[in-house]
Amino acid sequence: MKAWETLSSRVLLDCSPWLRVSSEHVRLPNDVQIADFYRIDMPEWSQVFAITDDGRVPMVEHYKHGPGVVSLELPAGYLEADEDTETGARRELLEETGFEASSWRYLGRYFLDGNRGCGGSHLFVARGAVQVSEPRCEESEILTLRLLTLDEVRAAWIGGQIRNIATAAAVGLALALVEGGL
Amino acid sequence: MKAWETLSSRVLLDCSPWLRVSSEHVRLPNDVQIADFYRIDMPEWSQVFAITDDGRVPMVEHYKHGPGVVSLELPAGYLEADEDTETGARRELLEETGFEASSWRYLGRYFLDGNRGCGGSHLFVARGAVQVSEPRCEESEILTLRLLTLDEVRAAWIGGQIRNIATAAAVGLALALVEGGL
Repeated sequence: MKAWETLSSRVLLDCSPWLRVSSEHVRLPNDVQIADFYRIDMPEWSQVFAITDDGRVPMVEHYKHGPGVVSLELPAGYLEADEDTETGARRELLEETGFEASSWRYLGRYFLDGNRGCGGSHLFVARGAVQVSEPRCEESEILTLRLLTLDEVRAAWIGGQIRNIATAAAVGLALALVEGGL
Repeated sequence: MKAWETLSSRVLLDCSPWLRVSSEHVRLPNDVQIADFYRIDMPEWSQVFAITDDGRVPMVEHYKHGPGVVSLELPAGYLEADEDTETGARRELLEETGFEASSWRYLGRYFLDGNRGCGGSHLFVARGAVQVSEPRCEESEILTLRLLTLDEVRAAWIGGQIRNIATAAAVGLALALVEGGL
């Protein structure tokens, strides 16, 4: 299965580091051409499903202005310049929840949008989580820490209380791995 | 937990119907203001986890230019103008795989990006799937139909072979519901 060929590309809007929109002239393997196929470059980010030794998962509840709803999510955030994905995950876990964790497993990069790109989310499962401080958020982050049991996380996930599709993906995978002993 | 207030908004780039980027001046509940908070409006889309009576799931494998990879995904696509979410899901299932299904369950709307918006994906689980025709794709869609058992879908999901985060979210939820008899 062949890749598309990008014949040319021009930037339509550059709001770096948050987003940059380009239009690409592409040629498909069947010679079909699309003159304006849009790409959106957005930052990479990490999210972490951390578990304490007694089986609790630190999650955060906050208003998200994109969809305009209060959302139950895993600790997550954009990587800083030159920051590797696990360092970013550890930093966000500590900032948003005050937790650290001893054993980290990387589940890989998941892309957000098949057509436009829209960056990627790097998923981690971390064990041995312990709270070492209070959350220390930026002033633009207003969030409530929630410490849920695995059963509560599963009920929220299955019950449709987790509406961020990236959180839902990470929670589902993490539950399957943790509960399956994988 | 209070919503942010949008004090003003201006469109920076309008490539409708595919995407429109706006900049909003917002005020947070703690009176912090952000002068340029970006919003990306993108189309809504449906995806469907369909199952035949003998437990097979029609999926599609295609090159996706956003991430530049070959991706294993559920049948999915943008809703047409004034099309409801289930009609869109039925149409995409038929176009991309040639399958119809008799019993449809809506799992709701999941948003793609908490900060930017980026549209929403509407998830369906459909039972009684049967193939009634060959796939009939647009010329810009080059895809391979794959008919997987539930065990094969689970192995692909857990094994990290499903890298579209929206597909991973839908597959995980559908497997939990179907295998859990929910």
